[in-house]
Amino acid sequence: MEIFSLSTKKREEFIDITAAVSTIIKKQRVSSGICFIFCPHTTAALTINENADPSVCRDILQYLNTRIPFREDYSHLEGNSDAHIKASCIGSSVSVIIDTSTLQLGTWQGIYFCEFDGPRTRKVYVEIMSKE
Amino acid sequence: MEIFSLSTKKREEFIDITAAVSTIIKKQRVSSGICFIFCPHTTAALTINENADPSVCRDILQYLNTRIPFREDYSHLEGNSDAHIKASCIGSSVSVIIDTSTLQLGTWQGIYFCEFDGPRTRKVYVEIMSKE
Amino acid sequence: MEIFSLSTKKREEFIDITAAVSTIIKKQRVSSGICFIFCPHTTAALTINENADPSVCRDILQYLNTRIPFREDYSHLEGNSDAHIKASCIGSSVSVIIDTSTLQLGTWQGIYFCEFDGPRTRKVYVEIMSKE
Repeated sequence: MEIFSLSTKKREEFIDITAAVSTIIKKQRVSSGICFIFCPHTTAALTINENADPSVCRDILQYLNTRIPFREDYSHLEGNSDAHIKASCIGSSVSVIIDTSTLQLGTWQGIYFCEFDGPRTRKVYVEIMSKE
Repeated sequence: MEIFSLSTKKREEFIDITAAVSTIIKKQRVSSGICFIFCPHTTAALTINENADPSVCRDILQYLNTRIPFREDYSHLEGNSDAHIKASCIGSSVSVIIDTSTLQLGTWQGIYFCEFDGPRTRKVYVEIMSKE
Repeated sequence: MEIFSLSTKKREEFIDITAAVSTIIKKQRVSSGICFIFCPHTTAALTINENADPSVCRDILQYLNTRIPFREDYSHLEGNSDAHIKASCIGSSVSVIIDTSTLQLGTWQGIYFCEFDGPRTRKVYVEIMSKE
């Protein structure tokens, strides 16, 4: 397992981690298999979505913020239940196929770390299952 | 990695791809492992849900359409932000265990390609991690 | 593949299955790899979220119940479309890295079976892909 860290700057933010994941694949010299990426936090998540126009990630974040409000009649006293709900809706992990030593993402896809309760220092776990 | 294509006919549509995935497992003669199925598009997704009554998929689609509206105050100029949001809520991949050379789905489960911005020609990537 | 059962007591309920999954990893003596956990039901799901304060799971369930109502203009005649919608939003599987023979969950993370149409007897499928 490989671990890398990132620092988020806002309460809610999507950070493109595609390059960091690709670096691990190159370092491990895996030519084919599955790359599994895991978020070990309960108020953050991982998703795959468009990396061409940054307004897409802004629209996703704004949608989540209007539909999963920060302030509501939550019972969790820490006051960040919205972030936990967003985390379970988006999901704690993503996986991508590796072929010819490359992440097999679609043309417009990037891998995003989704911060829902920042700013914080966060970790991402990566495990590669090689087919060789 | 195997790739197959499908043509969607409507803007929003669920298409059962279980048989197409099973064909790949038979062709590769895998008896046990994990079948990983990936959607390389940012306005489509994959899910597992009921395959007995087609009204279930219609209800899921209608729910998503009423709660994630096509027209809203989105900033992405292509006008399909609803499809990107749906894609991140449903997810870009599903995985199913293979045992005794068969997909270990529950009695009522099928694997669905979820089109949110069709009609288009779409691709599905399949990778099988064998336990042998 | 390993299978274990659980009995849910309410219509909607989150049940912590982390210990049951850990037992399987110990039994199989896997030191590193990926643990894949699959829900073979179409009105239940799996998620990873906070295991310290039980109010977090209550907040997630209450959020889902207010936003995905039990009664709405659904076409599926069984009357449990809300449970199917919740299942596709949360997802049918989760995966966790195994390292040093241990599930690599974050400090506050637990693995939850999400019942959306109980009470019922349910099954969970577990498959471990070892790196050795």
